[in-house]
Amino acid sequence: MNKDVAIVVVADEILQGRRTEANAAWLARTLFEMGVPLWETRVVSDRRGALEDALNALRSPTRTVLVTGGLGPTRDDRTREEVARFFGRNLSPSPEALALVNASYERRGIVLDKAGESQGDLPEGATLIPNPAGTAPAFLLEHEGYCVVCFPGVPREMRAIFQESVRDLLASSADPPGLARLFTHGLGESLQEQRMSELGLEGVEFCSLPGWWGVEIQCLVRGEGQDRQKRAEQALEQVAEKLGEGVIRPLGKTLRQSLLDLLRNKNWQVAFAESCTAGLACAELVGEPGASDVLAGGVVAYSNELKTSLLGVSSTTLETHGAVSRETALEMARGAAKICPNGRGLGLAVTGIAGPDGGTSEKPVGLVWIAASSPIEEVALELRLVGSRDDIRQRAAWRLIGLGWRIVR
Amino acid sequence: MNKDVAIVVVADEILQGRRTEANAAWLARTLFEMGVPLWETRVVSDRRGALEDALNALRSPTRTVLVTGGLGPTRDDRTREEVARFFGRNLSPSPEALALVNASYERRGIVLDKAGESQGDLPEGATLIPNPAGTAPAFLLEHEGYCVVCFPGVPREMRAIFQESVRDLLASSADPPGLARLFTHGLGESLQEQRMSELGLEGVEFCSLPGWWGVEIQCLVRGEGQDRQKRAEQALEQVAEKLGEGVIRPLGKTLRQSLLDLLRNKNWQVAFAESCTAGLACAELVGEPGASDVLAGGVVAYSNELKTSLLGVSSTTLETHGAVSRETALEMARGAAKICPNGRGLGLAVTGIAGPDGGTSEKPVGLVWIAASSPIEEVALELRLVGSRDDIRQRAAWRLIGLGWRIVR
Repeated sequence: MNKDVAIVVVADEILQGRRTEANAAWLARTLFEMGVPLWETRVVSDRRGALEDALNALRSPTRTVLVTGGLGPTRDDRTREEVARFFGRNLSPSPEALALVNASYERRGIVLDKAGESQGDLPEGATLIPNPAGTAPAFLLEHEGYCVVCFPGVPREMRAIFQESVRDLLASSADPPGLARLFTHGLGESLQEQRMSELGLEGVEFCSLPGWWGVEIQCLVRGEGQDRQKRAEQALEQVAEKLGEGVIRPLGKTLRQSLLDLLRNKNWQVAFAESCTAGLACAELVGEPGASDVLAGGVVAYSNELKTSLLGVSSTTLETHGAVSRETALEMARGAAKICPNGRGLGLAVTGIAGPDGGTSEKPVGLVWIAASSPIEEVALELRLVGSRDDIRQRAAWRLIGLGWRIVR
Repeated sequence: MNKDVAIVVVADEILQGRRTEANAAWLARTLFEMGVPLWETRVVSDRRGALEDALNALRSPTRTVLVTGGLGPTRDDRTREEVARFFGRNLSPSPEALALVNASYERRGIVLDKAGESQGDLPEGATLIPNPAGTAPAFLLEHEGYCVVCFPGVPREMRAIFQESVRDLLASSADPPGLARLFTHGLGESLQEQRMSELGLEGVEFCSLPGWWGVEIQCLVRGEGQDRQKRAEQALEQVAEKLGEGVIRPLGKTLRQSLLDLLRNKNWQVAFAESCTAGLACAELVGEPGASDVLAGGVVAYSNELKTSLLGVSSTTLETHGAVSRETALEMARGAAKICPNGRGLGLAVTGIAGPDGGTSEKPVGLVWIAASSPIEEVALELRLVGSRDDIRQRAAWRLIGLGWRIVR
């Protein structure tokens, strides 16, 4: 039996480069980890007939097509009618779907209008799939072993629906590989690759997935045998050994999870003092549920006045060394540490020039000082970051979280 | 004549979610701005026959296919042989291509091996396109009006080759649309759509692009006539008129740009007091270059102690009404306003329950109070937000920025 799956993204705004495609990448990765083979991915237009043509073309090589987009209330949202036409069905109001749409509008305090109501239409014979994260319901339709599953294009809605209702449908025929993962921080990707290749592990595939926080490394073992998972985990141990210091332990924990756990174990709190990142480092750490246990709070001190009044940075330091300097960063970190109760605190500070303006030849855009102050140690680090304003701010925020992790572990 | 172009990305590592696709998004945007219509985008496997099949399928709807990937030296790099087979040509060593490959290896101090030499093979009749940024040369092959252009998959090489050699080929038949855009905040997407459809504008395409900050609306005018840009701008004015209050002016400015401009005009500063968003609102505002003009700073007050010590929220208020309440939000906003110099400040505050834990029946996950305090006005707003922890934090942050915008304009 043909096990392949295809993804079709319906969106003119993606074909026109006006929005970045996020669903196909997430689905591809999820299917890969599940062991479901992906035949191909297409981005097609909203125009009449485009999705129908794609469904026709994919019928022979695949058994399931995952369609994202085109389920909203606008005239360009044609996925329901395209799928109905492809399967030769009528499109008609589904009371169950309409009830879900209605409930979602009510929760948001909006009156359902004619356009909104179209989200309650379904091709006849379709199975309704509730949308736990938004309005437009998803649905699937199967005929002679060919199944088309339609998701809204909003990534968080698509993901919620996939996890809740579609994953199990696909998993029945999946052949999940042995999969083990770890996260690293502060190691170069190509250095990691080189060290991993030196291990010469047979029958193990490696994947490196970089993010602002570092790199996720996956070890995959496919094929016959019940011990795939065990072999993947053994390979991961060898990789961790080889990569050394930059590996976050216990294996599988992310940087921020590890930092939060380490702080809990020490019974410390953490506080931030941020300038150029303006709250981003603190907000990224708090993205992890349960961060409230150990986060005292933080100060965004953009102006020199606030660096002094809220964090206690001396005006002499600011005058002598400037706002972007080792000395200011350290005093900011000490000020942050003092925010934590009982002096049991980790203070993390960042000050820098994110650009695009404000750089000088002496202190160019991308110059960032980060510092940490704890009851046992103080450290400051100069970074020279490249990229856009957003790149620099993201990198600086995560390097600061990484610095905190290094000194508490 | 058919003017449409298609993109085919050849890469198993993208189908497996191991690498994020970057070429199609860049090409799509570049083509859109040039006015070259993009028919569809596909990601296909490295396996034998996959690219050939795609070229066959795209022959009728398009005149040009841009292929990225599969030009490297490994066994999986099959683009040259796939294109040769599709056009019924032989694949043979091209002395010019081989010389370019050789020169590139020499520059990097690497000896050219057998695998590397394969990068000098070209289908007979192909036109060589030099690669200014890497090794593998690009090429194109045309037959009966159907042109296939093959680029290496490395994004910076692809972009350099496109800009240097391919842009002009496509520009001859390009037709840039008239394009005008505006941003809204706090209007439902389907309500907007309904009002826009009531306008009954002929020959104008609308596009709604939602984000956390609101919705971007684009008006596009294609086809004949020199006045397309003017017509798009006129349509935009009518849309703005129709949508009313939620439209951010001047048209084309984003929510945060508008808030920053309004603050500059009033000579006010802004400061944040954040609890559940933990710095996110402040960080999102500062994502805009030049925010430092008007941002004083902010406080992340997660604990009640910090709400009192850094923001001056009275402990009576916290005991009587709780941390997530109208009263606490307003006192936090006043505390934030006081951070701004000379009392000329807008204080923006947010306190809520982002989840996944911490909710009660009286104060459930998603309950968020936002408040603003300015020299002329104070306002607090209760939100009931849905979604994941990240969703709730993002929505709360942007609703707070929106509240600030409403009271300063």
